[in-house]
Amino acid sequence: MIVLFTDFGSRDPYVGQMKARIQEVAPNQQVVDLLHEVPDYNAHAGAQLIAAFSASFPPGTVFVCVVDPGVGTDRDGVVVTAGGRWFVGPDNGLLSIVSGRSSDAKVWRITWKPELLSSSFHGRDIFAVLAAEIAKGEFPSVKLEEKSALNVEFDTGDLPRVIYVDHFGNAWTGLRDTGIPRGSRVVAKGSEFIHADTFGSVGKGEGFWFVNSVGLLELAINRGNAAEKLGLKVGDTVQVFKPN
Amino acid sequence: MIVLFTDFGSRDPYVGQMKARIQEVAPNQQVVDLLHEVPDYNAHAGAQLIAAFSASFPPGTVFVCVVDPGVGTDRDGVVVTAGGRWFVGPDNGLLSIVSGRSSDAKVWRITWKPELLSSSFHGRDIFAVLAAEIAKGEFPSVKLEEKSALNVEFDTGDLPRVIYVDHFGNAWTGLRDTGIPRGSRVVAKGSEFIHADTFGSVGKGEGFWFVNSVGLLELAINRGNAAEKLGLKVGDTVQVFKPN
Amino acid sequence: MIVLFTDFGSRDPYVGQMKARIQEVAPNQQVVDLLHEVPDYNAHAGAQLIAAFSASFPPGTVFVCVVDPGVGTDRDGVVVTAGGRWFVGPDNGLLSIVSGRSSDAKVWRITWKPELLSSSFHGRDIFAVLAAEIAKGEFPSVKLEEKSALNVEFDTGDLPRVIYVDHFGNAWTGLRDTGIPRGSRVVAKGSEFIHADTFGSVGKGEGFWFVNSVGLLELAINRGNAAEKLGLKVGDTVQVFKPN
Repeated sequence: MIVLFTDFGSRDPYVGQMKARIQEVAPNQQVVDLLHEVPDYNAHAGAQLIAAFSASFPPGTVFVCVVDPGVGTDRDGVVVTAGGRWFVGPDNGLLSIVSGRSSDAKVWRITWKPELLSSSFHGRDIFAVLAAEIAKGEFPSVKLEEKSALNVEFDTGDLPRVIYVDHFGNAWTGLRDTGIPRGSRVVAKGSEFIHADTFGSVGKGEGFWFVNSVGLLELAINRGNAAEKLGLKVGDTVQVFKPN
Repeated sequence: MIVLFTDFGSRDPYVGQMKARIQEVAPNQQVVDLLHEVPDYNAHAGAQLIAAFSASFPPGTVFVCVVDPGVGTDRDGVVVTAGGRWFVGPDNGLLSIVSGRSSDAKVWRITWKPELLSSSFHGRDIFAVLAAEIAKGEFPSVKLEEKSALNVEFDTGDLPRVIYVDHFGNAWTGLRDTGIPRGSRVVAKGSEFIHADTFGSVGKGEGFWFVNSVGLLELAINRGNAAEKLGLKVGDTVQVFKPN
Repeated sequence: MIVLFTDFGSRDPYVGQMKARIQEVAPNQQVVDLLHEVPDYNAHAGAQLIAAFSASFPPGTVFVCVVDPGVGTDRDGVVVTAGGRWFVGPDNGLLSIVSGRSSDAKVWRITWKPELLSSSFHGRDIFAVLAAEIAKGEFPSVKLEEKSALNVEFDTGDLPRVIYVDHFGNAWTGLRDTGIPRGSRVVAKGSEFIHADTFGSVGKGEGFWFVNSVGLLELAINRGNAAEKLGLKVGDTVQVFKPN
């Protein structure tokens, strides 16, 4: 399975072009759109998100990850394997958290350049092609060069910020559910959230925090739009106050 | 064919996670996104919409229907068969109209719980898995318990309200084309609409009603945005005045 | 491969219905969503866009192209072949540029009407079915009638206007990269853009023009939203001033 994870936008023509390229290289390959609304140009939020998402995908999954404001400059393209999964994308930090949290990560620099290479769309021209080859079981050794580490590495710890806001207005944070007591209060943009297990266990219009389906702390309002009502945006800091 | 029908949003990462789960259970299964913008939390509009849509899908189609503000509470999950098609989703009314309008509906309560069950995403953890099994032809009897009726049942009649607004600004109503004379006037939010067969048969900027491609009355403005211009929203009441 | 190119909206239920119809006619057919946000009702922008996009798709690709404000009126439906690719859609100019730029184009009028034909959704009822048959290798001769030319033909030259704005706020123009010196200044809505090869080669917040991944001149701001900041919209005129 190839999984796409980008900031290309779900309404724009970029994803379709990548998929067409994948089909040319690996006909009948299954391709799943995971997310095309990674916050624009935000490799940092993207790195936290892909680390959280990828854990629940089966070994052998090939992720094409593109949040790439430096496309066409001399930043490298890389292939990473970690935890039995594959990741193809730019070496700008985007893959550094999933790689850094793994004990068995390996990194290759992409040395290959296709004959027709646009300056703005390596997702289609390079990353999609390599991902399709890996998914087919034809590891493209001649297009790669092993290297010891990524050039750009982000802190692999939690990120106490809002990293994604969904269309319901729920705000995902970069905080994992590791030892945070359920009695903790979470504060963001001056608003306080207490814990609840489910949306239905608080009143309509009430805010709460919960551990979401990929193991991250998420801020929400039952049947309301938390981001709109409380002004939450990607990048806002989040504080956790543990009970005494 | 598995058909997805949710309020998960077409830009968010929820749909991709469901599809990945389906691929794990039923590799190479065809999956079609019908709608991921059912009005948020609105099981009532969703129930009218899925009843209208499903009729034109071939027997054997498996619909995963998720509009589920009560996820994680003690509302049941169900499998319904009606008219030769399958429906998997919450027992909150969402499947009650397609079921109630059928003479051969059967209902099962989902008794199965997966080992890893999030509190907020049964679409991925439960409904997608059961739909994939049914689509494969492996009816999951051991995960189900037959029951005589749904717990939550909506009126199976027409709903004289706006139930969906598309990106053109056209407003779908919950009124079916059953005995409404073409000379009828339709009134919504103080605006009056007369009938036309096609967009091109009224002037640019003129409003009209027509029977849309799934048999529902729809309000539109030729080459204009009716919802924006006239303030139409999901939930607005719609009145039909038949000619004398 | 079938490629979909429409103004049906990526969030609405129209695309899914087309895909379901394609699956019924041609099970397991690969279908790629290229673009569902062609500017609404704008066959002219659509004609420029599909001409630019299609060139990089392999021969044999079947495009379903629907921007069709005249649906249900007496405008014809057509099948066009040009450059080894297939195009199915309305005869309203949308396919006239890709056809007119080709030396080997052939045109057929669609004479077939399905038993169940809605007045508003020929994309599902007619075009999807014919595209699926062509993709299967079963050319539907009995449903077609050869004709010498399209009824509606647009100028096949470049269009010096904004024809698409993506979610980053980048503005695509209808100008191809044919003999435009890199020293040229491009002016739109009173703003001036100089050339740069990549986003990363100008400062954050600076505007520039570049040749995009389908060979069109595009206006952008590095890490900024050009359309929002400068008020660029589809239809705005664009001027190129070549260096002395």
